[in-house]
Amino acid sequence: MSKNIFFESKGPFKLNILFPSHSTSNNKVNDIKTLDKAGKLDLTFFDSLKYKNLAEKTKAGSCITKENLKRYLPKTCEAIIVKSVLFELAKVTSKFYPNADLDYPDNSLKKPNKSKFPGVKFGNNVLIGKNVKIGKSSIIGSNTIIEKNVLIGKSCTIGSQIMIKNTVVGNNVVIQDGAKIGLKGFGFIPLKGKNLRFPHVGKVILEDNVEIGASCTIDRGSIGNTVIGKNTFLDNQVHMAHNVNVGENCMIAGQVGFAGSSTLGNNVSIGGQAGVSGHLKIGNNVKIGGGSGVVKDIPDDTIVMGYPAVPLKEFLKKK
Amino acid sequence: MSKNIFFESKGPFKLNILFPSHSTSNNKVNDIKTLDKAGKLDLTFFDSLKYKNLAEKTKAGSCITKENLKRYLPKTCEAIIVKSVLFELAKVTSKFYPNADLDYPDNSLKKPNKSKFPGVKFGNNVLIGKNVKIGKSSIIGSNTIIEKNVLIGKSCTIGSQIMIKNTVVGNNVVIQDGAKIGLKGFGFIPLKGKNLRFPHVGKVILEDNVEIGASCTIDRGSIGNTVIGKNTFLDNQVHMAHNVNVGENCMIAGQVGFAGSSTLGNNVSIGGQAGVSGHLKIGNNVKIGGGSGVVKDIPDDTIVMGYPAVPLKEFLKKK
Amino acid sequence: MSKNIFFESKGPFKLNILFPSHSTSNNKVNDIKTLDKAGKLDLTFFDSLKYKNLAEKTKAGSCITKENLKRYLPKTCEAIIVKSVLFELAKVTSKFYPNADLDYPDNSLKKPNKSKFPGVKFGNNVLIGKNVKIGKSSIIGSNTIIEKNVLIGKSCTIGSQIMIKNTVVGNNVVIQDGAKIGLKGFGFIPLKGKNLRFPHVGKVILEDNVEIGASCTIDRGSIGNTVIGKNTFLDNQVHMAHNVNVGENCMIAGQVGFAGSSTLGNNVSIGGQAGVSGHLKIGNNVKIGGGSGVVKDIPDDTIVMGYPAVPLKEFLKKK
Repeated sequence: MSKNIFFESKGPFKLNILFPSHSTSNNKVNDIKTLDKAGKLDLTFFDSLKYKNLAEKTKAGSCITKENLKRYLPKTCEAIIVKSVLFELAKVTSKFYPNADLDYPDNSLKKPNKSKFPGVKFGNNVLIGKNVKIGKSSIIGSNTIIEKNVLIGKSCTIGSQIMIKNTVVGNNVVIQDGAKIGLKGFGFIPLKGKNLRFPHVGKVILEDNVEIGASCTIDRGSIGNTVIGKNTFLDNQVHMAHNVNVGENCMIAGQVGFAGSSTLGNNVSIGGQAGVSGHLKIGNNVKIGGGSGVVKDIPDDTIVMGYPAVPLKEFLKKK
Repeated sequence: MSKNIFFESKGPFKLNILFPSHSTSNNKVNDIKTLDKAGKLDLTFFDSLKYKNLAEKTKAGSCITKENLKRYLPKTCEAIIVKSVLFELAKVTSKFYPNADLDYPDNSLKKPNKSKFPGVKFGNNVLIGKNVKIGKSSIIGSNTIIEKNVLIGKSCTIGSQIMIKNTVVGNNVVIQDGAKIGLKGFGFIPLKGKNLRFPHVGKVILEDNVEIGASCTIDRGSIGNTVIGKNTFLDNQVHMAHNVNVGENCMIAGQVGFAGSSTLGNNVSIGGQAGVSGHLKIGNNVKIGGGSGVVKDIPDDTIVMGYPAVPLKEFLKKK
Repeated sequence: MSKNIFFESKGPFKLNILFPSHSTSNNKVNDIKTLDKAGKLDLTFFDSLKYKNLAEKTKAGSCITKENLKRYLPKTCEAIIVKSVLFELAKVTSKFYPNADLDYPDNSLKKPNKSKFPGVKFGNNVLIGKNVKIGKSSIIGSNTIIEKNVLIGKSCTIGSQIMIKNTVVGNNVVIQDGAKIGLKGFGFIPLKGKNLRFPHVGKVILEDNVEIGASCTIDRGSIGNTVIGKNTFLDNQVHMAHNVNVGENCMIAGQVGFAGSSTLGNNVSIGGQAGVSGHLKIGNNVKIGGGSGVVKDIPDDTIVMGYPAVPLKEFLKKK
């Protein structure tokens, strides 16, 4: 079971301590994970029929869910029935991870001690947090900040005026100036007067050979991670929300925006300024025209265009 | 009458000195304000029938306007009749505030003298201008710049690589990395060869519990202010132009853009990449779909979508 | 013939060394240039019928092209026939300019030696590369980085937290905080596993009286330059890809995006969030409505709107 290297858990907790009015079980809960990643000692959550297939197969020991969804969970999983899954999830996640609701600036930042980073070139005024690791032949540009526990592979070219936190970077990755990577996402329970922020205990994973354009913003996952697959390139000013998962060899043009939790296959290309709504599944080899607004799942090998995006033939007919 | 804490006025001036060919009055003009904020000793401006209601009730002593709009002004208000209201306004504003046409970088910036900021935590390389005030328990991240006279409340979490100028920040406000707040807006009189920039003497006001996402740009007001109401949250890469006024408890997703001078009510939610044109009035409890282009006023309790945005039912019918 | 001040050429090379299986000529090739800029000792490229007119008049000594386009080239120009013009162009450009595929952070950056910049005001922590020249009465804000060989004119106001590289800036230019100018563009040959990056050996040229808004990204040219004409103003968060050429006195509102290689005439105005596809020709005095998606050339004096953008009358009829 992989440990969370960025956020320290206050757990384990017993289930009946976490949910005194919902459970009498004194089973231990070690961590909170998504339906597909959770194990016997983990708590998970299930809030939408979209995730029925994952729910049916989850190995989680317990699950926050709603009355009408309970029946999809396996018998090995204790259902914690609530009215608002996300509200209860936010509260319980805050018990495990009390400092993940906000990005408190890292107070361990220092000028890099170059002897700890053999073969790495640093520009001026670089700031590095504790436990950061950077592979040899990587370059870090001036005024860039790399917060604690970040891992960066070999032969990366990290530009200037960049922020990287809560992120694992592969080899040969290129990040251009001004990008902000690994920040908390836009997740909260709206409450008049004072919204309740959803903790973000996930990370960003940039696989080998990824390129991130200037001034992109890539938020880390809330529960689970934001992942960009091998050899996928992003142009400037792309915004990627929490928990988006992009496959390999994709090409994403300037100013494209992704709402949270969508997954993209491999070899997807997206034209400039297109938008992808949340919780969608975009297949392999999909092409999305510039300026399109994608609001539905897209099967493999499809070309779509328009607002809302439809298959190309349909788009041309409408014109 | 509130003093402008960010820009020093060269006034008062006499009206016949400001407009020698338009007025013989030697009444004093203390300042330039919007129709609703101006008092007896202020000059105001009135350029569009949209603002007729405000014009009829203005308490301003004098007003730059056009021949056809003059009749809406109360008798207590001396009309200065011109061909281009904005051109004359730009010129006269420059007389009062000669250094507000551009953002000249603050030359009073220094590392913070920590004894002046009890209970405030600073990251590395923070730069603070003179007369900045920051409430206790606030945190300021590394490489952030806070220019002169900015006021920041208590318990704020200001990230890294941020610029804040000409701004008043409430309590419990969160600003994420890379945001640029309080810069001059995109206002000028187009002139071939050398545009005439409109002075920006207003400020940005972020009320309590506001959250601003990474790499947002929020311009200050020209005359009047840009205001974000209590507990309103903005996602990453939002652009808000000068003089926009947003109510309380709003939720504005990534890459949304606002042209100048629109007002939004409370509890408004706006999906990613939507755009709101200038000088519009968006009511309370309005929902604007992602990617929409809003070009008209929207009454309370309305859901709109599309480009141009129309009520949801109409949008679904068209598809 | 103008020398490339930002990238050092490894040339000249003989044509039969560059293309041993395509040419037997031992003519010297000094440099690689676009069809209209190339001279007798330059290699050029011709990949699309769009550029037929330029091809017919090129003075280049040799040209990478395809079998079906060869016939448009003058007899003075030796055609190098290949399957993928861009792939071969990327490879040969890398021979001339081996370090232009990526933005390796400038390792010559230092605090400015103020005696070398008479009449220039610097904020705190400014970093300047070698051979940078800045005209008198210019101001450079804090934390801004200006990389090697950049030229900046007189009376410019360059804000804070800005990156400028591979750029020539005229007089009276204004650049607002956080802009990233002169970075490599989004150009590569997609190859599964490891894309081949297209070298960017061009520059950005900002002519006199230009204004660039906060957090804009303006990429330099690949072969050829990205140019913004006199007195053109850009609002915040505009993205301009490589090789875009904008005329004079244009007005480009917030969050507009340009794909590569389009040209705009003079007096063009573009509303917020509009997008302009690649390789288009936009005439003089064109007005493009906010949120529009331009996918075709636009003749002079036209107003367009919509997605895809059509003349205004047509747009209104469709509604």
